[in-house]
Amino acid sequence: MTNTESVRIGVWFVGARGSVATTAMMGAAAARDGNATTVGCVTEGPDFQGAELPSLGNLVFGGHDICETPLPKRAEQLAHAGVAPARLPELVRADLAAADAEVLPGTPVFDADRSQREITTLLARDLRSFRERHELSRVVVVNVSSTEPRPSPRPEHERLEELERALDDSEPGREILPPSSLYAYTALRAGCPYVDFTPSLGARVPALDELARQQRVPYAGSDGKTGETLVKSALLPMFAARRLHVLSWSGTNLLGGGDGHTLSTPENVTSKTSSKQRALGESLGHPVDGDVHIDYVAELGEHKTAWDHVLFEGFLGARMSLQFTWQGCDSALAAPLVLDLARLLARAHETGHAGALPDLAFFFKDPVGVDEHRLEAQYEMLRRFAESLGEAR
Amino acid sequence: MTNTESVRIGVWFVGARGSVATTAMMGAAAARDGNATTVGCVTEGPDFQGAELPSLGNLVFGGHDICETPLPKRAEQLAHAGVAPARLPELVRADLAAADAEVLPGTPVFDADRSQREITTLLARDLRSFRERHELSRVVVVNVSSTEPRPSPRPEHERLEELERALDDSEPGREILPPSSLYAYTALRAGCPYVDFTPSLGARVPALDELARQQRVPYAGSDGKTGETLVKSALLPMFAARRLHVLSWSGTNLLGGGDGHTLSTPENVTSKTSSKQRALGESLGHPVDGDVHIDYVAELGEHKTAWDHVLFEGFLGARMSLQFTWQGCDSALAAPLVLDLARLLARAHETGHAGALPDLAFFFKDPVGVDEHRLEAQYEMLRRFAESLGEAR
Amino acid sequence: MTNTESVRIGVWFVGARGSVATTAMMGAAAARDGNATTVGCVTEGPDFQGAELPSLGNLVFGGHDICETPLPKRAEQLAHAGVAPARLPELVRADLAAADAEVLPGTPVFDADRSQREITTLLARDLRSFRERHELSRVVVVNVSSTEPRPSPRPEHERLEELERALDDSEPGREILPPSSLYAYTALRAGCPYVDFTPSLGARVPALDELARQQRVPYAGSDGKTGETLVKSALLPMFAARRLHVLSWSGTNLLGGGDGHTLSTPENVTSKTSSKQRALGESLGHPVDGDVHIDYVAELGEHKTAWDHVLFEGFLGARMSLQFTWQGCDSALAAPLVLDLARLLARAHETGHAGALPDLAFFFKDPVGVDEHRLEAQYEMLRRFAESLGEAR
Amino acid sequence: MTNTESVRIGVWFVGARGSVATTAMMGAAAARDGNATTVGCVTEGPDFQGAELPSLGNLVFGGHDICETPLPKRAEQLAHAGVAPARLPELVRADLAAADAEVLPGTPVFDADRSQREITTLLARDLRSFRERHELSRVVVVNVSSTEPRPSPRPEHERLEELERALDDSEPGREILPPSSLYAYTALRAGCPYVDFTPSLGARVPALDELARQQRVPYAGSDGKTGETLVKSALLPMFAARRLHVLSWSGTNLLGGGDGHTLSTPENVTSKTSSKQRALGESLGHPVDGDVHIDYVAELGEHKTAWDHVLFEGFLGARMSLQFTWQGCDSALAAPLVLDLARLLARAHETGHAGALPDLAFFFKDPVGVDEHRLEAQYEMLRRFAESLGEAR
Ligand SMILES: NC(=O)c1ccc[n+]([C@@H]2O[C@H](COP(=O)([O-])OP(=O)(O)OC[C@H]3O[C@@H](n4cnc5c(N)ncnc54)[C@H](O)[C@@H]3O)[C@@H](O)[C@H]2O)c1
Ligand SMILES: NC(=O)c1ccc[n+]([C@@H]2O[C@H](COP(=O)([O-])OP(=O)(O)OC[C@H]3O[C@@H](n4cnc5c(N)ncnc54)[C@H](O)[C@@H]3O)[C@@H](O)[C@H]2O)c1
Ligand SMILES: NC(=O)c1ccc[n+]([C@@H]2O[C@H](COP(=O)([O-])OP(=O)(O)OC[C@H]3O[C@@H](n4cnc5c(N)ncnc54)[C@H](O)[C@@H]3O)[C@@H](O)[C@H]2O)c1
Ligand SMILES: NC(=O)c1ccc[n+]([C@@H]2O[C@H](COP(=O)([O-])OP(=O)(O)OC[C@H]3O[C@@H](n4cnc5c(N)ncnc54)[C@H](O)[C@@H]3O)[C@@H](O)[C@H]2O)c1
Ligand code: NA
Ligand code: NA
Repeated sequence: MTNTESVRIGVWFVGARGSVATTAMMGAAAARDGNATTVGCVTEGPDFQGAELPSLGNLVFGGHDICETPLPKRAEQLAHAGVAPARLPELVRADLAAADAEVLPGTPVFDADRSQREITTLLARDLRSFRERHELSRVVVVNVSSTEPRPSPRPEHERLEELERALDDSEPGREILPPSSLYAYTALRAGCPYVDFTPSLGARVPALDELARQQRVPYAGSDGKTGETLVKSALLPMFAARRLHVLSWSGTNLLGGGDGHTLSTPENVTSKTSSKQRALGESLGHPVDGDVHIDYVAELGEHKTAWDHVLFEGFLGARMSLQFTWQGCDSALAAPLVLDLARLLARAHETGHAGALPDLAFFFKDPVGVDEHRLEAQYEMLRRFAESLGEAR
Repeated sequence: MTNTESVRIGVWFVGARGSVATTAMMGAAAARDGNATTVGCVTEGPDFQGAELPSLGNLVFGGHDICETPLPKRAEQLAHAGVAPARLPELVRADLAAADAEVLPGTPVFDADRSQREITTLLARDLRSFRERHELSRVVVVNVSSTEPRPSPRPEHERLEELERALDDSEPGREILPPSSLYAYTALRAGCPYVDFTPSLGARVPALDELARQQRVPYAGSDGKTGETLVKSALLPMFAARRLHVLSWSGTNLLGGGDGHTLSTPENVTSKTSSKQRALGESLGHPVDGDVHIDYVAELGEHKTAWDHVLFEGFLGARMSLQFTWQGCDSALAAPLVLDLARLLARAHETGHAGALPDLAFFFKDPVGVDEHRLEAQYEMLRRFAESLGEAR
Repeated sequence: MTNTESVRIGVWFVGARGSVATTAMMGAAAARDGNATTVGCVTEGPDFQGAELPSLGNLVFGGHDICETPLPKRAEQLAHAGVAPARLPELVRADLAAADAEVLPGTPVFDADRSQREITTLLARDLRSFRERHELSRVVVVNVSSTEPRPSPRPEHERLEELERALDDSEPGREILPPSSLYAYTALRAGCPYVDFTPSLGARVPALDELARQQRVPYAGSDGKTGETLVKSALLPMFAARRLHVLSWSGTNLLGGGDGHTLSTPENVTSKTSSKQRALGESLGHPVDGDVHIDYVAELGEHKTAWDHVLFEGFLGARMSLQFTWQGCDSALAAPLVLDLARLLARAHETGHAGALPDLAFFFKDPVGVDEHRLEAQYEMLRRFAESLGEAR
Repeated sequence: MTNTESVRIGVWFVGARGSVATTAMMGAAAARDGNATTVGCVTEGPDFQGAELPSLGNLVFGGHDICETPLPKRAEQLAHAGVAPARLPELVRADLAAADAEVLPGTPVFDADRSQREITTLLARDLRSFRERHELSRVVVVNVSSTEPRPSPRPEHERLEELERALDDSEPGREILPPSSLYAYTALRAGCPYVDFTPSLGARVPALDELARQQRVPYAGSDGKTGETLVKSALLPMFAARRLHVLSWSGTNLLGGGDGHTLSTPENVTSKTSSKQRALGESLGHPVDGDVHIDYVAELGEHKTAWDHVLFEGFLGARMSLQFTWQGCDSALAAPLVLDLARLLARAHETGHAGALPDLAFFFKDPVGVDEHRLEAQYEMLRRFAESLGEAR
């Protein structure tokens, strides 16, 4: 462990000035200095003590974004919105200023002036420079940028060779990959472990899976599980184990914040709600009635409210129901998971894992490479994975 | 399995004319004849197919009660209250009439005329006669009678030898054991597996545990888990695995029905709520604020409503909450579990199990002999137990 | 009052075989014979005792529908679904059979064979025949048929003269008026008071308002208020009177039943949700954030569940919230109101009222001719209206 | 109105360092300077513009308390707990410091050293000195101190003459009146209008009513209506007007804060819950099943959560339910009402009102001198009262 403790790990956020990234950086600095506890950090629990994960204090932050609000100011906004104690931004100001100096312009959704080959070359240069200047043993790239519309499938996504050729031939203003996948491509090509915390396409492209395995780099995703789906994945096994027949499962999500706004466009809603409903169908093994809504309610700010209604049938046809209301602070739920993932991916890389990491399903709404949606079973997978990380080498 | 299929198993209900017992008998007959599905029966799931449990159709019912309403009439009341389809009582009338002929007067809470030694002798005679007349390979006794007040501990409860002596010396009107424990004593002494589905003391007495092991008879309990506690045991692991800090957990239970009335007396409330809160403390490993209320609302009839409010803290101190409302039909939830338990206990007895069965924790609010309160982990214990039952002999 | 008691009043349902109509007829017969109370009937309260309304026992039922299920069978389905006690359909069988004989084929949404002038002539003949055969002093037509899509406005809807001309010139298969408005036209032209219990266009057409006044016939509507909007109209004045600033009001309605299915088509949702949101804006005097969803959940049957979330701000900017869940049996809520409306319209007609009756806003989501959406204020209007009915002539 | 504007009015809080008083003073200063809006202040609405109430800026604050935390510090604690914006305490620091200088030691619940006659003499001296030093035209005393246990009735409470005699004869350490009533006595005797914002006994003693009328001083109470009861009083008229039969109404209140702690002692719970249930019985005119719980949950701080469950019956016996969850910031709800009441009482005194003011029922859970519990009807009474205040003199 002495070994792991001394090395410094880079965490590169795509969307580095967003709520989740800022909260994660603020919290890492605060926890390191004893100004905050690590409540909500899964990997701080006893099951992870032997996994030789890098410590929070050894993480170095940077990232890409397309917005210019400096991190110290973003932190103040978050404290004002109740995400962090009023005095915390002041206490971590120096850390945030240092990280802010490492935030560089990302690629916009549409760039009329550069081909996607040029863009990835520029993004890769940023990553390399970050790693070298800070003498980092490795850099984990975590996508926490705005959810993007789901693009139509394209033939060149299927095989790496064709993807590379398409990028070589790409022209300014023509999209081969959506931004999230371009960031994923850049990371994997540069040998950086990659995490899709958003529901965007990201690394979920056959050609990128091929790239990850070729480069011997692990990746994980998609879509951090912090609210309605988290509770669902805890409750679903109850209905299944008791053989209670779920007739319908309906949900309404009221979201404020920057992400709520992004998700309010119809295309994005589809991308998000379909990942939410997937867990349900797969877990119960039969189609279940019900809609899931995502409503943007600006005034909720960082505080999300989800209401779910489950209608089920028991012995002799009795009709019963379960309702729940989850009132969560999204960034406070997401930020510690993002730190967990960065630490786990760094160690997974170090111990030779490559390609998709299905054992991290516990963190995601739409876990890559696995059909297990029961929370406890997912935790058990994660626990064993951590155990194996500790035993490696 | 052919072997198991042919033998007939007795199920002897203490409280045989109550809602739970009547629903169980009505449902067993209906399911056997294809007039109802087995939704809600845990042991009908694939994980139990190899356990060689007796089939529903091979169960023969009887029991003790102190009320006189005939079972066919009780069934009509339950259908009227929405527990079963309006036409079901008619379809199972013959079965209920047959069972009704096997329901004999139990012992009242207070009997001024007989010593407890005399009472247990009479109760045992009923059990033996039932077994012999129906040529049953074994009889499982299931306590689904009204919740009784929790008695003060007595020294003679500690060791079997002293308990026997106290019963020998007992005089009319003097209580050595509360009724539930007297029924448990009778069952175990007669070599019958025993289930405490109620929160009453029952078999949870050191002397009775000794008796069970001496007689090579298994027993299980306590307090069927069908509502608030069920949901709690599904949600608690979520907070634990995510390291979210539960600050308070408050609950209000609105109950109608016969049992709601019994529970409305303050002594009983204590007996019930303390078993409910035990799960919480043990699972989270730290004291949690909050009260649990049980209110009797006569007009709710068989439909229980529970509201729970959980206040928790996440990263950087963010305050969040989860509320749920569970609207369940109690007897519809309990009856299939009672059938599950009867079948599991019969097979456990057959395969040589004796004493407390901690592996059945999944069914109980206050599981005997085990500290595991996470629902999924309990299910996994149960699944393995069923597997071992299939492998036995 | 002796006078009023002796006369018989016709109630003609458009959608006579639907849930609401069937429940209303079943209930009127049951209440008349003492087989049911009048719980839920507003006009049975003390404030209406002097209004000289026709008694429930003096109502004679008939109507139009396009479905063929006989009323006694429909009643059994409703009892099975929990809308009425299991034995009630049997007790009112004769009454329902009599009413069933008075249910005639209505006009379908699209009729390729007849012009709308022909259709209205045929419908009017049915109405007249009903009135004459039963020697009814008057017939109130109540639209409780399926919600229809909202048609685009047409110039000939503006003035009666032009509407008549357009109907004269109409050809088979060409729609001048949507079915609901054609029924309203027929009723008013035939001198029958008319009630729009549905959100369909119905009488809300300038030309039809002109017709009502010309014919000296009263009409009322639109869209019976039985669920979410009812609770809203009770809660809104609280926020207003306390000067608490409502920031958002979000709602999700889960509906089963025939009407839920109809409403699930996108066009209809718009027609229904816009009438729901109208109350909100008008009452608070400022735009309020939030969406209203209507989801079809077939398994809910006749039992609707609505969840509303209100975010509001108080003194010094404090954020607070109110949530409610309404679990109602739609037809049980609607049927007594339909009887109330029939009785009120009959008496209003008798006492010379003509045109829109804004004083009946209490019954409607989208009350015609009035901006008052506060429930208590609406009740006060209604109470005074009833008083005036008693004083008339 | 020029007249009213120029005069300064004293507001004397019993419990001046508590959450409600501090929030009221902070808010009055902030609103006066344009640093806060008057959201939540009823008397700032258009219906009160003609009532000639003193303006917020003309209120001068002081009071009694038994705790020593200075107001500026108390304000910071409240801002920290989310009751006010983080920066507000700084902006109103000077005002709070000035008010703090006017907060004097009150009388503890038990004083072994002084007779109650001596105590009231000392308290009265504080009131007079405040009035004189600030040249106030009048001083309104508002009781916002901790809820006290309800004392047993005593014969000397019945008539003023006997009360005076008992006070004259009183000895140190013997309680004739509970503290709240002693404060009320002092106020009324000193010619100060008095408001019972707490559920304590206060002025609700026949002898004190006599005193108020004798002294020509108005008083109002009891128990500010800010949560569950407020919503109840908005919803009850809905059930009544629709003639829906309420079968049970159950409530659970989770309270933190100082007051939650005080209320957690069993005696106080009784005093508070009985005032809550009174509204229910009186409004519906028939006994209603159900319990009301008040639970202390320290970690909720200033944020109260109330859950209510209403079971009701509709037409043909259909069972339905309404649940609501109210999540309110208690002091933010109470503080503006306290300012409203001070202004209304000042003007009522000025215009010659004396004795109990039933027209202020809108503000109270347990309104003195009136049985009207419907919120809208109460608002109408209040509106007319305000109108009459404007017309006076
Ligand atoms: N907070 C949660 O609980 C949660 C859970 C699951 C998933 N997520 C996902 O995490 C993401 C971030 O959430 P958030 O609340 O921080 O959102 P946010 O809007 O606060 O932050 C997103 C950031 O991404 C930046 N961005 C947008 N487009 C970009 C681009 N092309 N390149 C680089 N940066 C870009 C934005 O400028 C912004 O700073 C969202 O996609 C969200 O769906 C969040
Ligand atoms: N229904 C559930 O979901 C559930 C869950 C956990 C535990 N339980 C427990 O199961 C038990 C039965 O519940 P229920 O709803 O059927 O209650 P119930 O009141 O309908 O039935 C209880 C029966 O026990 C009988 N009885 C009372 N005293 C007796 C005695 N001394 N000897 C024999 N019979 C006696 C009564 O006459 C009655 O017929 C209760 O203790 C309840 O707490 C039920
Ligand atoms: N139940 C409530 O609480 C409530 C409240 C407000 C409004 N409404 C409205 O009342 C109406 C009836 O509701 P319901 O639950 O009884 O629905 P339903 O589906 O049970 O009944 C509708 C009936 O209308 C008939 N119909 C359809 N098109 C017709 C036509 N062109 N001519 C004649 N009949 C026709 C159908 O055959 C059916 O029998 C709906 O429009 C609904 O939106 C109901
Ligand atoms: N906040 C609400 O929504 C609300 C609604 C209705 C009623 N109330 C009542 O208002 C009162 C105040 O509530 P709070 O939240 O401000 O409570 P709090 O505990 O914050 O303040 C009470 C204050 O009273 C003081 N006090 C106690 N005994 C005293 C005495 N004998 N003499 C003088 N001062 C004394 C305490 O020191 C404290 O400063 C409570 O009785 C509460 O029940 C509050
Ligand atoms: Na909240
Ligand atoms: Na329900």
